Amino acid sequence: MWSCARFPCKLVRPMRSISLTAIEGIPMVKAGDDLAALIGDALDRSGLRPETCDILVVCQKIVSKSEGRVVHLGDIEPSEFAKSVAARWEKDPRAVELVLRQTNRIVRNDRGVIIVETGPGWVCANAGVDESNSLENDSAILLPVDPDASARRIRTGLRDRFGVDLAVLVTDTFGRPWRDGLTEICLGIAGMNAMLDLRGTADLAGRELHHTVVAIADELACAAGLLMEKAGAIPAVLVRGYPYQPFDGSAKVLIRPAEADLFR
Amino acid sequence: MWSCARFPCKLVRPMRSISLTAIEGIPMVKAGDDLAALIGDALDRSGLRPETCDILVVCQKIVSKSEGRVVHLGDIEPSEFAKSVAARWEKDPRAVELVLRQTNRIVRNDRGVIIVETGPGWVCANAGVDESNSLENDSAILLPVDPDASARRIRTGLRDRFGVDLAVLVTDTFGRPWRDGLTEICLGIAGMNAMLDLRGTADLAGRELHHTVVAIADELACAAGLLMEKAGAIPAVLVRGYPYQPFDGSAKVLIRPAEADLFR
Repeated sequence: MWSCARFPCKLVRPMRSISLTAIEGIPMVKAGDDLAALIGDALDRSGLRPETCDILVVCQKIVSKSEGRVVHLGDIEPSEFAKSVAARWEKDPRAVELVLRQTNRIVRNDRGVIIVETGPGWVCANAGVDESNSLENDSAILLPVDPDASARRIRTGLRDRFGVDLAVLVTDTFGRPWRDGLTEICLGIAGMNAMLDLRGTADLAGRELHHTVVAIADELACAAGLLMEKAGAIPAVLVRGYPYQPFDGSAKVLIRPAEADLFR
Repeated sequence: MWSCARFPCKLVRPMRSISLTAIEGIPMVKAGDDLAALIGDALDRSGLRPETCDILVVCQKIVSKSEGRVVHLGDIEPSEFAKSVAARWEKDPRAVELVLRQTNRIVRNDRGVIIVETGPGWVCANAGVDESNSLENDSAILLPVDPDASARRIRTGLRDRFGVDLAVLVTDTFGRPWRDGLTEICLGIAGMNAMLDLRGTADLAGRELHHTVVAIADELACAAGLLMEKAGAIPAVLVRGYPYQPFDGSAKVLIRPAEADLFR
């Protein structure tokens, strides 16, 4: 389970240490930019050579920008419903309209917070629509249409360039119930499984672990998040030393199915 | 904000990289054990010398064990309520009773899942009571009574021994609504703030960030969790390279106040 393409035999080495390195010097990203090329160039300039089994974590914002997911609020005509919600909470009705257009189900709309389930199933505030860090004024950034596919494209681009198999995660910053403060989560993944399933393994007392499925993709997102300064132009981090089995993964396994979710 | 005692001037260096190192060789922990001494011995044996501004992450289980928070289920007399809940979901009534004794409010009791708010305010499944990894059969491990105080004790012990100021986090594994899979969270902290408040700073477009308070303690917990193999006896991890301002922190700031929580 803890093996990796480089370490094909299981449990061949203890997990001793993991390094997280900020990839600096990625320029402002525009629609149509080739992210793998921009990240590859930044890696080259930094002298940081990716290796097979490294994990590249890329923040959603630059992925969305490269995919043209920036919307000018001036182009948005709010519905009457959006206007009424916006009036209630003193929000921009065009921004509310944009949120509603990404929404499959409104989970909560209370005290100025709009928590929704998006079309692809993410449950988050404002459908992940982001009004900060979009360089054009009066614009907002939407989530990528298919973040797994975004991750796969970056992975393929870096494999072609460096001849190595990385895993790639696309991550975003979400709030959560019960706990204050934002943390990073994984929206899209390529090259590894987003979960580590320990069910069937034994604990130290030899008792079988029944409930232990670890959301390692979210833990990796959080680890990388420590280096992604919000305003500091560090949109990508290289993780080295975390062994994993190469796998054609999807971040959708991180979405709790609605029928199993007691809080939706 | 990104300064640290070692780097007193603000923004004095870019955050380039963070290392996470598993502290191996910590023996089975028993009630009354001095955790700082056990961790210090393991650090000595590994040749890993802690430095001021390192962050030590310690899993809750060994903290609870050292503090004698292990309960033998045979000593527990379940109430009628515990029996009825247990019968409904085919659980051990003594284990349910133990959960209820840590409970301030039942948030959800459905489909075999008992989510509660504990006395200190944590919202989690089974009040954090853990039946795995307790070496004695038929026993369960409770959360530490005051995890901040636990972290402070470890911090003081290591400062006395090594002459360095670390931050210490006590972490546990929790589930969460909306997202499948477990991740690590911070239960107790000493020596640093659990939150990084970016409000008032500007994004890349010069727009003020209004909502950005990052739960860095939970992100650090997740990062360390990548090295804490559930069944593998890695109960502590040393984090190096994450700059922070020394601070008399508390993990309680990570609890969203009930009145601001739309899902409690």
